[in-house]
Amino acid sequence: MKQSTTTWILTAVIIVLAVALAGVLVFVKNQPAQVRGIPALTVIQAMEPDSSKWGVNFPNQYSTFKLTEGNNTRSTYGGSNQFSHLEEDPRLTILFAGMAFSKDYNEDRGHMNALADVRATKRINEKTPGTCYSCKSSDNPALWTSMGMVEFDKTLFSDLSQHISNPIGCANCHEAETMRLVVTNPALDEALKAQGKDWTTFTRQEMRTVVCANCHVEYYFAGEGKYLTFPWSKGTNVDQIDAYYDETGFKDWEYPEALTPMIKMQHPEYEMFTAGSTHYNAGVACADCHMPYTRDGSAKFSTHDVKSPLINPDAACGACHTDVKYVTDRVGIIQKQVADTMSATEDALVAAIEAIKAASADSNADQTLLNEARTLHRKAQLRWDFVAAENSMGFHNPEEALRILAAATDMARQAQIIAMTATAK
Amino acid sequence: MKQSTTTWILTAVIIVLAVALAGVLVFVKNQPAQVRGIPALTVIQAMEPDSSKWGVNFPNQYSTFKLTEGNNTRSTYGGSNQFSHLEEDPRLTILFAGMAFSKDYNEDRGHMNALADVRATKRINEKTPGTCYSCKSSDNPALWTSMGMVEFDKTLFSDLSQHISNPIGCANCHEAETMRLVVTNPALDEALKAQGKDWTTFTRQEMRTVVCANCHVEYYFAGEGKYLTFPWSKGTNVDQIDAYYDETGFKDWEYPEALTPMIKMQHPEYEMFTAGSTHYNAGVACADCHMPYTRDGSAKFSTHDVKSPLINPDAACGACHTDVKYVTDRVGIIQKQVADTMSATEDALVAAIEAIKAASADSNADQTLLNEARTLHRKAQLRWDFVAAENSMGFHNPEEALRILAAATDMARQAQIIAMTATAK
Repeated sequence: MKQSTTTWILTAVIIVLAVALAGVLVFVKNQPAQVRGIPALTVIQAMEPDSSKWGVNFPNQYSTFKLTEGNNTRSTYGGSNQFSHLEEDPRLTILFAGMAFSKDYNEDRGHMNALADVRATKRINEKTPGTCYSCKSSDNPALWTSMGMVEFDKTLFSDLSQHISNPIGCANCHEAETMRLVVTNPALDEALKAQGKDWTTFTRQEMRTVVCANCHVEYYFAGEGKYLTFPWSKGTNVDQIDAYYDETGFKDWEYPEALTPMIKMQHPEYEMFTAGSTHYNAGVACADCHMPYTRDGSAKFSTHDVKSPLINPDAACGACHTDVKYVTDRVGIIQKQVADTMSATEDALVAAIEAIKAASADSNADQTLLNEARTLHRKAQLRWDFVAAENSMGFHNPEEALRILAAATDMARQAQIIAMTATAK
Repeated sequence: MKQSTTTWILTAVIIVLAVALAGVLVFVKNQPAQVRGIPALTVIQAMEPDSSKWGVNFPNQYSTFKLTEGNNTRSTYGGSNQFSHLEEDPRLTILFAGMAFSKDYNEDRGHMNALADVRATKRINEKTPGTCYSCKSSDNPALWTSMGMVEFDKTLFSDLSQHISNPIGCANCHEAETMRLVVTNPALDEALKAQGKDWTTFTRQEMRTVVCANCHVEYYFAGEGKYLTFPWSKGTNVDQIDAYYDETGFKDWEYPEALTPMIKMQHPEYEMFTAGSTHYNAGVACADCHMPYTRDGSAKFSTHDVKSPLINPDAACGACHTDVKYVTDRVGIIQKQVADTMSATEDALVAAIEAIKAASADSNADQTLLNEARTLHRKAQLRWDFVAAENSMGFHNPEEALRILAAATDMARQAQIIAMTATAK
């Protein structure tokens, strides 16, 4: 009996220890080398611009990130294929007449192509400021620290080129020592502070949306120094952004012959998604859909092959939704509703522009009414472009997108009516 | 040993029998009396108009149904409170000028009040046909069977009154012998057949939506006999209904001074909900939200206190959604987006009407253009009313509602522009 009891106790102790050891091993295996407190394969310097060095320690994240270079899959309305929006919809050459987007407006490719593509675009010329590199390179965090954003922005694009050799990379969103997600773009830091927000207090889930706002936002180049600025001090929805530009009197360009002071919207994904969308309000982060958790053997990690969720819906939507076909069908229905509505807005804008050009050419036209028409033209196109330049064909916030387009069409038609009235008088 | 074995076997048999008996009792308890095959407390005749007789056998369903008489709770935009839409939004008196809705347009109360309210409305006069009783009484199924719908509809409302004494009730949706859900309105039966659909093949869950279409649909009175007709032969979405009315050349009234042949939309809840809404596509039925399952002691039943889910969201939304506050907040956001967008559509319609009236008064106006403006006025208001008359402030299908309103505003503004052009020439 005594012999048997000893055997039982020994066996139980061995089993408990084995289970505990297995648990510890699994836990440690899932931690990055540096976080584990054991020597990393390579030490990554603060703001290291070369992503391949980070990749030694984080091979899964790096190998998936590199996929963003080759993937060029097109979704129905977007994706990572560099198709020409101007060829798809010739009305855009009218809407952007007199500014660079009427010459070259291609769909963006993946993150690894950011540097090559900004250097190739016809929108860059000898006067382009360094500000245009703001979202294109992992060299930026170190440059912003060493030379400051004021200097960075006012340096000519062509002169800044010698300091920049890496596309978007690890350093744009991660702190090397801790791997935590960080705001690296000083413009985002300033815009959050202007709203009384301190990103260092945000949860990790919040940061999985906020780091995308390092770039995926509406911005403009303020003043002579072309200082990168997010127009958020009144808030981030389209009406608040419009009010901001009204107050500052900023214009990106003047529309030829109509003489309207125009605003070009830039990819306001963060603003659209966070404006009370169903997914944002439910606590979903950008990374949940665009960088879904994936597996390589026993390792679970967030894929860094950032792309349209419509290209890998099983991973992107399937993490939360059991019926992936149902939800992707819903996306299709919603995007078609937005695309059809947006097309009507474009027709209304083209008609408004024609009417304002005609009134501008008429020396007898009522100038007060004509200026009212121009104001509506500016506001209508700002709203249309908030949806058009936003990369989701409205899906990031369907009701908000449709609400904005309805208002834009109404304003464009009113601009047309008032310009007609200005001429008739 | 032998004594012990016998005891064990006996005990086991008793337990098995007791569990089986309990199971049978629970199953039988959950069946209606007549379905159980045991004598019902009272035998219900086919198409029995008196709901209180059905109530003897189905006390839970009947007692909750009776609550529809007293409840008069208002939700933000609707509910069961008989407030005046004309007082809330005086633009409606302009939009409905020349027809009965400009005189009396109150929010509907619950089912039990249907008969009293239709008899009290100022929209009824000595010429009103019997058709107006179609959705108001549980006497109808028996009357449609005995006199036929042709005779029912062409009889004057005032003459038909003597045959009608019950408000909406059990017989409008249930077959007495089996309690199954049935299509009782001949107009719905005909409209489904015109689309090649046989409702007797539908699942119970489908019927939990389709029986609501006995009444909650767009309809019109066809021909001299005022024959109740659903305009569905081209399909049930707003564009297909518009195409149907275009083809038939039907008008509900002519707009005074503008001379536009108008269509009044009636509560198209079924059409809006089934036009690819997220809830419909996910397999949700009308009854899931408006008649949620509830309990009285051990009995589980579908409440017949049909009302806005916003008045009892824990039961209505909570059956599927774990976070009821989140979903009701979403409803609030969406309904405000729709209400704001709808308000802009109304402004556009009022402006269009003014322009068309001015052009109609101008004997030099271009008549081709003026008719084009009238066509757009008709189409715009039909679309606006599809959303405005639909009881959900867009929530039954938010993207579809916003898409329709955007199109309506665009058409109304174009009507205004073309009428202005007609006068200028």
